[in-house]
Amino acid sequence: MSAIRTPIEYNDASPEVRAVYDDIMATRKTDWVNNFWKVLAHDPASLRRIWTNIKEVMGPGTIDPLVKEMLYIAISASNGCRYCIASHSAAARAKGMTEAQYSELLAIVGLANETNRLVTALDVPVDERFL
Amino acid sequence: MSAIRTPIEYNDASPEVRAVYDDIMATRKTDWVNNFWKVLAHDPASLRRIWTNIKEVMGPGTIDPLVKEMLYIAISASNGCRYCIASHSAAARAKGMTEAQYSELLAIVGLANETNRLVTALDVPVDERFL
Amino acid sequence: MSAIRTPIEYNDASPEVRAVYDDIMATRKTDWVNNFWKVLAHDPASLRRIWTNIKEVMGPGTIDPLVKEMLYIAISASNGCRYCIASHSAAARAKGMTEAQYSELLAIVGLANETNRLVTALDVPVDERFL
Amino acid sequence: MSAIRTPIEYNDASPEVRAVYDDIMATRKTDWVNNFWKVLAHDPASLRRIWTNIKEVMGPGTIDPLVKEMLYIAISASNGCRYCIASHSAAARAKGMTEAQYSELLAIVGLANETNRLVTALDVPVDERFL
Amino acid sequence: MSAIRTPIEYNDASPEVRAVYDDIMATRKTDWVNNFWKVLAHDPASLRRIWTNIKEVMGPGTIDPLVKEMLYIAISASNGCRYCIASHSAAARAKGMTEAQYSELLAIVGLANETNRLVTALDVPVDERFL
Amino acid sequence: MSAIRTPIEYNDASPEVRAVYDDIMATRKTDWVNNFWKVLAHDPASLRRIWTNIKEVMGPGTIDPLVKEMLYIAISASNGCRYCIASHSAAARAKGMTEAQYSELLAIVGLANETNRLVTALDVPVDERFL
Repeated sequence: MSAIRTPIEYNDASPEVRAVYDDIMATRKTDWVNNFWKVLAHDPASLRRIWTNIKEVMGPGTIDPLVKEMLYIAISASNGCRYCIASHSAAARAKGMTEAQYSELLAIVGLANETNRLVTALDVPVDERFL
Repeated sequence: MSAIRTPIEYNDASPEVRAVYDDIMATRKTDWVNNFWKVLAHDPASLRRIWTNIKEVMGPGTIDPLVKEMLYIAISASNGCRYCIASHSAAARAKGMTEAQYSELLAIVGLANETNRLVTALDVPVDERFL
Repeated sequence: MSAIRTPIEYNDASPEVRAVYDDIMATRKTDWVNNFWKVLAHDPASLRRIWTNIKEVMGPGTIDPLVKEMLYIAISASNGCRYCIASHSAAARAKGMTEAQYSELLAIVGLANETNRLVTALDVPVDERFL
Repeated sequence: MSAIRTPIEYNDASPEVRAVYDDIMATRKTDWVNNFWKVLAHDPASLRRIWTNIKEVMGPGTIDPLVKEMLYIAISASNGCRYCIASHSAAARAKGMTEAQYSELLAIVGLANETNRLVTALDVPVDERFL
Repeated sequence: MSAIRTPIEYNDASPEVRAVYDDIMATRKTDWVNNFWKVLAHDPASLRRIWTNIKEVMGPGTIDPLVKEMLYIAISASNGCRYCIASHSAAARAKGMTEAQYSELLAIVGLANETNRLVTALDVPVDERFL
Repeated sequence: MSAIRTPIEYNDASPEVRAVYDDIMATRKTDWVNNFWKVLAHDPASLRRIWTNIKEVMGPGTIDPLVKEMLYIAISASNGCRYCIASHSAAARAKGMTEAQYSELLAIVGLANETNRLVTALDVPVDERFL
């Protein structure tokens, strides 16, 4: 049993895993699969389940695809997930995010984390108008 | 010295604090100030400083005002700040967020928190294409 | 089996639990025990173990007792533990924390949470001089 | 004063530190000590205190030793502690955790982090039956 | 548009939502549905999606059902989700968790959160044997 | 558009950015600027805004400068920001923090993170005396 889970490349993957890789590439209109899926592939059931969730939640809906990527970046930065920040920043840029927008996004991430803690520390009562 | 910091109402506020309250209401084109600022007002320097930051970061820029509120909600939900979720959800709704968009936003918040931890647990190496 | 763990009062406590309560009161030179210990008392081994740790770490050392309480508040505010903020703020005030100091402490809590996320999002390389 | 705390090897350790190393190896029936303890050894009082806690909490009790390691992994993954995930995964594997169990554990870590945020964002009222 | 999302009772639910409620009750062999699902029901797509995930991940597998609930509690306590702690503690008790086991679980939650931060603060290098 | 934000050196910086670098060095009575500011400099407005905040909050006040750095370390360790721990530890050492104080600080960081989770898990009711 290997202690580390290395990415499973397409050529080494089972038919079940390949089917998910194929769907990822077809959905994203691209010819490669990023490491998250290749590492998750050690557990085909999770690979399929998580991809199904991502496809449904990040797919067409009422929120703009670029905004969805920006939301993902904001959460990943708050949680400290370096890989997630890198991958979703790349996706956001591919969808048109400008450097000015990225700077503005980071400013909001920082400020929200600041005011979140001030509110928590001060135990601010929720205004009636917000209920 | 009071153990609890109660909201300071306009009529009980110092001229320094009132000036910030006035600017908040003028900037937001509204006639009231929410509890966060009224509790923060016990420390006029922080009140002025934080408001200056919020005004600059949340003001006109390259990201749509509604999207800015949605980013704030996403971060507040990840951080578990109940007041912040309530206040920024109210602001987002006032700026036109639909129930369908709110549901989609929550779905992204949940899923990003899930995949952030999977990535972290699996210590996924960052793809060269992302660098 | 009760679903909720209610505070165990001195008169209802076992001799083992009373011994810890007595030591808490003697160490703190006070005549009461706060709820954290009374709830933890459902598990006497944990009560004793955690109290032993707190007594050693928060006792006399090279950091001023008031500063220790301020560190506890800063961490509790970042973690969102309402009870912890309340109890350690009370302890800090009893040890002489002024309102001005509390305001300054909260400002640092907010700002550190902001810059922590900016640094993480930007993946800032550690300066050689810091190593 | 060194800026970095390097692991202190057995041969360079004080008798006080060696005594803890010896107890770690005897308790774990192994002939080596992992880096966490060797770095913590710069502060012998903390080394002794933390080891005493780990020995008591992770030692024989009513929860199976493998389950204890799995709980540690789940928390470490949620907190983003890379070293802790690596060390407790190794310990869990040594205690018999299969790859299938590890996959299932990771799936729970991801899903719990998702639903935790959904519950928080939605401010779900606690059901009476749970109280 | 209501600011708050109140639980949707069975009698007020759409056929799509009722189908999920029915499956929850059938799977759990119980006659009621807890508030999490009833609040999530405002977004039927998320209700169905999250329930499908929970059913797959928390269902029969290689980890004991009680252990799965304990993992959920450990994560929820680390994340500070009060509702989640209450609901999964109830589930764990229904599956046989004793008070002694619950105490032991809480002790691990506390200690893991302590050592996670010590490891992070000390930037402990991962031992080669763990890789 | 570069995917990575590399530090902007003084010689390559715009006059606006140089003005902030100059103020940082003058305020700190030093001849260099650390990477955080050099990376933030890709967004001059954020560079100026964050520096203004840091200068005001970390400048002279009612809390000792060394204590302010220790508070920053405590929060950064809880949040898992490696760079922030390194930079503020260096600053604290430059202001006189001893190794014994650093060890004591780390012990508090660990213990506070432990008791924060115990309190949260146990949902301890706030004592009336704390309100």
